[in-house]
Amino acid sequence: MRIALAQINTWVGDLAGNVERCLAAIESARNQKADLVILPEMAIPGYPPRDILFDASFTAAVAAATTDLASMTADGPPVVVGTLWPADQTLHHHPGLYNAAVLLSGGEAQLAAAKRLLPAYDVFHEPRWFLPGPPLPPVSIAGRRLGFLICEDMWDEGYPVHPPADLLAAEAEMLICLSASPYRRQILSERLYHARRSGCPLVYVNLCGATDELIFDGRSFVLNEAGEVIAQLAAFEEEVRVVDLDSSETTEQPQITTNQPEPPVEELYQALVLGVRDFARKNQLDRAFLGLSGGIDSALVAIIAAEALGPARVTAVAIPSRYTDPRSTAYAETLAANLGIGFDVVSLETMHSAVEVTLGPLLDGGTTAENVQARLRGMILMSYVNRYGGLLLNTSNKTELSLGYATLYGDMAGTLCPIADVTKPQVIALTQWLASTRRNLIPSFIIERPPSAELRPDQIDPFNYTEVSPAIENLVQANHSNPALRRSEYKRWQMGVILKVSDKAFGTGRLMPITRR
Amino acid sequence: MRIALAQINTWVGDLAGNVERCLAAIESARNQKADLVILPEMAIPGYPPRDILFDASFTAAVAAATTDLASMTADGPPVVVGTLWPADQTLHHHPGLYNAAVLLSGGEAQLAAAKRLLPAYDVFHEPRWFLPGPPLPPVSIAGRRLGFLICEDMWDEGYPVHPPADLLAAEAEMLICLSASPYRRQILSERLYHARRSGCPLVYVNLCGATDELIFDGRSFVLNEAGEVIAQLAAFEEEVRVVDLDSSETTEQPQITTNQPEPPVEELYQALVLGVRDFARKNQLDRAFLGLSGGIDSALVAIIAAEALGPARVTAVAIPSRYTDPRSTAYAETLAANLGIGFDVVSLETMHSAVEVTLGPLLDGGTTAENVQARLRGMILMSYVNRYGGLLLNTSNKTELSLGYATLYGDMAGTLCPIADVTKPQVIALTQWLASTRRNLIPSFIIERPPSAELRPDQIDPFNYTEVSPAIENLVQANHSNPALRRSEYKRWQMGVILKVSDKAFGTGRLMPITRR
Repeated sequence: MRIALAQINTWVGDLAGNVERCLAAIESARNQKADLVILPEMAIPGYPPRDILFDASFTAAVAAATTDLASMTADGPPVVVGTLWPADQTLHHHPGLYNAAVLLSGGEAQLAAAKRLLPAYDVFHEPRWFLPGPPLPPVSIAGRRLGFLICEDMWDEGYPVHPPADLLAAEAEMLICLSASPYRRQILSERLYHARRSGCPLVYVNLCGATDELIFDGRSFVLNEAGEVIAQLAAFEEEVRVVDLDSSETTEQPQITTNQPEPPVEELYQALVLGVRDFARKNQLDRAFLGLSGGIDSALVAIIAAEALGPARVTAVAIPSRYTDPRSTAYAETLAANLGIGFDVVSLETMHSAVEVTLGPLLDGGTTAENVQARLRGMILMSYVNRYGGLLLNTSNKTELSLGYATLYGDMAGTLCPIADVTKPQVIALTQWLASTRRNLIPSFIIERPPSAELRPDQIDPFNYTEVSPAIENLVQANHSNPALRRSEYKRWQMGVILKVSDKAFGTGRLMPITRR
Repeated sequence: MRIALAQINTWVGDLAGNVERCLAAIESARNQKADLVILPEMAIPGYPPRDILFDASFTAAVAAATTDLASMTADGPPVVVGTLWPADQTLHHHPGLYNAAVLLSGGEAQLAAAKRLLPAYDVFHEPRWFLPGPPLPPVSIAGRRLGFLICEDMWDEGYPVHPPADLLAAEAEMLICLSASPYRRQILSERLYHARRSGCPLVYVNLCGATDELIFDGRSFVLNEAGEVIAQLAAFEEEVRVVDLDSSETTEQPQITTNQPEPPVEELYQALVLGVRDFARKNQLDRAFLGLSGGIDSALVAIIAAEALGPARVTAVAIPSRYTDPRSTAYAETLAANLGIGFDVVSLETMHSAVEVTLGPLLDGGTTAENVQARLRGMILMSYVNRYGGLLLNTSNKTELSLGYATLYGDMAGTLCPIADVTKPQVIALTQWLASTRRNLIPSFIIERPPSAELRPDQIDPFNYTEVSPAIENLVQANHSNPALRRSEYKRWQMGVILKVSDKAFGTGRLMPITRR
C-alpha cells in the first residue's frame, strides 16, 4: 500500500486557497501512484480558526468546500482530509462541531474520525468549539483496516478515553493520525514516544507553517510495526511524500529518545524564521522594521527577519542616545551591511532634550528618565511602520520579559515578538551558532559585550543571566509565579504576538490573572 | 427556615483574607439567627483563579483553608461555601479539580455539589481546570432537602445534562445556586429567566466585586414557588441578608422580563466604578492618571475614576498641541476642578517640534504625523505613572476600538480600559445621565462638541456614530468580522485589561486569530 503524506501549509480562513493547496498535494500524490492521500488536521478551514467557528456562514462555507473537494477528487485515490463536521446537536454558546477526518472517495464525503480527545490546556481551547467525537470503527481502504486519529487522540496517556486502543480492539491494522501539532523544543521525541505506544504501524501527518503564535514544524513520519521510523518528512517545509508500507526499507532512523538532550539550536532558528515569514506573508505585510541596538537580542531578530523576508524587505533603525556607546551604532551598521538589510540612524538627542525641557522634575529619580528613552524609540520605530507599511518586530527575549526588565510601549512594542519565548541563554546559543556557521556575519563586539540597555551612563543589566534565566524559566514552565513575575503580568498582557517555541510561552496559552494575592 | 445570602467580595488567591471575609459574613448571619449560610462560588480561592490552579501548592492551600474554615465554624449554623475539591483523577495537563459547593457542618467538610456544566464560551474556560462533577443528591439541612447548583448548572438550556431537573427528580424541595456571574447589560433578566425555569423555590447567591476584566454585580435573590422575587440584595455592594423562607412577605418585585428594554444607564455606571475601584485596590495601586482631552470619552473616565478612587487619588493631564482648541483644555480644567481631581497641563509643542526636526519627511502624508502626537501623549502619561506609581487609565471607547480608529501605544495605552466595552452611544447616554443628575459638573462644551481627535486642523471623527456604532457592535456580538474589524485585530491584541459589560467584549473572551483570510 502506497500512502501519501501531504504535509502542506494551510491558511486560516482561506477556504478557496486551502482547497487549491489540497488539490495540488493530491495531484502530486497521484503522480507518485499513491493508493491513499492523508492531509493534516483542519486542512480545509485552516488551523486554528478559533472564534471564527462561531460564525455560521464560515462553517457552512467549510462544509461546501469539503463537498467541492470530494467532487473534484472523485476519480483519484481516496483522500482523508481534516475539516469540520456537524455534530447535529444544537447547543447554547457552542458551534456544535466535530474536529473531523473525512474520507473523500468516489465523489462522496464520509466521516472517518471525529476527534475524541479535545485538548483544553496551554494554547488549546478546543472544548470551546468542538464536541468530543464518538468512537468510530476502522475504515477499509485498499484492502486494509485503517484506524484514524486526530492529533490529541494519539496523546491519550492521562486521559480516561483511549482512542488508539479502541481502534486496535476493533481490529485496525494500522493507525493514521492527522495532526496540527505546534513546535516546541522537545516535541519530536514526544510525538514519537506517543506514536510508538500503540505498538502498531502508524502514519503521522502534521501541518507545516505558522499562524500567529503557533509554528507547525511538519516532520510527518511513518512507523513500522517495530516502531522504527521508515520515513520522516522535512522540517518546517511543505512536502508530499509517498511511502510504500510494504517495502521493508527504513530511513536512517533519527536517534530519538524521550530523555533526549537539548535538540540542535538550528531547529529553533528554523522555527523562528518560519514564524516570522508566515506572519508577514499571510498578513500581507511586505516590510519589517526593528530597532537595532548593537546588542545581541536585536542582532538575532535582524538575522531571523532577513532570512524570513529577504534582506530587501527589512529595515533596521539604530536610535543612539547620549548614553549609547558609539561602537553600538557602528557595529549595528556593520551587521546590517553584512545582512544586506536597510539601515537608518535616528539620533535621539533632540527629542530627548525636548522631553527633558517639557517634563523637567517629572523625570527625577527612579526609572522614569530611562523609560522615556525606550518609549521615544518605540514611537520612532512605529513612525516607520505608519509611513511605509509593514510591521514592527519586537526584540525582547523571554528572560527580560519574565523579570519585567522591559518598558511597556517602549522596547515592549511590536506586533510580532520573534524571540519573546526564547530565554537569554538560548539567544546566546543561537547567536554563537550563527557566528560559527556564518563567518564574519556578526561583529564580535555584539556577541562579547556585557548586556546593557544603555539608558544611563555605564549601565549593565542587573542580572546574572546564567543563574537567573533557568530559575525564572522553570517557574514559568511550572505555572508557578513569584513576585517578579506577578509584578510584570500587566505588562506582558499587552505584548504583541509571541512566537511559541517552549512548552509554556507568554500569550494565549497562559491565562494568569493580574489581580491576585 | 432562615437562609443567609452572603454576597461577599473575594480576592483571587488571597486565601487567608477570603477565609476572614467568609468568617465575617458567617458571624453576621449567625447574629441574624440564620439556619444556613450560603457563600458564593469559589469563595475560598477567589474567582477566577485561572492558571493559578495548575500550581499544586495553591490547590493544597485551598484545601487546607477549607478545612480550617470548617473547624472555625464548627459550633455555628451549617455553611455552604464555594471552593475546590479534588476529583481523584490524575490527568495530564489538567489539575483534576471540581468546582465545588462544600457543606461545612460540625467541623467537617462534605461535598454538596460539584459543578456539572462547565462553561467553555466567552471569558469562561472552565474545562481547562475542572472536571464535570457527578450528579449528587440533595442534602438534608434543618429538615429540608436542598439541591445545590453552581452557576452554569442553572443555565442548562441547550446542554444535554440538566442539573436542576435531576435534583428535583431526587426530591429536592428547593434549589440553592452558588454563583460567580459577571455583569453584562441584560444579565439580571437572564438570571431570573433561568432561575424561574425550575419552577421551585430558589436561592441565588452571587459574588460581588471585580477581578481584572470581570465585574460581579451581586444582586443575589430568593424566588418563592411562584417565581416571585421575595428578596433581592444590593447591586455592586457586599451584603449579608437573612431571608425567612417560611414568611409569605415578598419584596417589591422588580419588573423584569426577558424582553426588557435597555436597563438603566446608572447600572452601567456603577459597574464601571466597581471595576476601576477593585482593580486599583486589589492591585494596591494608590493613584490613577488619565489624559483629559476636553472630549466626552475622557470626561466619562475621569468621573468614573474620581468616584472609584476618590478625587484626591486621580490626576488628569491635558496635553494640548498646536491643533487643540484652547477651549478643550479650559473646559478639561473646569471639569477637573468640579470633580476635585488633580489637573496638570503639559504642552506638546516642544516635543512635537523636536519630533518634526528629527523625523522630517518620515512624517509626510498619511497618519504618521497624527500618530506621533498620540504616542507622545502616551509617553507623557506613562511618565506620571513611572514617577508617582499607580496606573494609567485608558480612555478609548468600544466603537473606535472596533473601527481601529485609535493609535497603538498612543491613545490605546493604559493598563485598565474602563470604557473599552462601552459603545459611543452608551458613552453619550452615560454622560447625559451624569449631566442631568449632577448639575454643573460637566461643561456643556464637552458634551456638545463634535467628536474630534484634534490631531490636525479642524479634524472631526470621520464617522456617523449613530449609524456606525450599532452596526459594528452587532458584528462584534455575533463573532462576525468585517475588514475594519480584522484590520485592527493586532492592535486590540495589545490592549490592557478591558472591563467587560457586554455579552462580547474584546479581551480574553474573544479568541480571534489575527492571521486569517
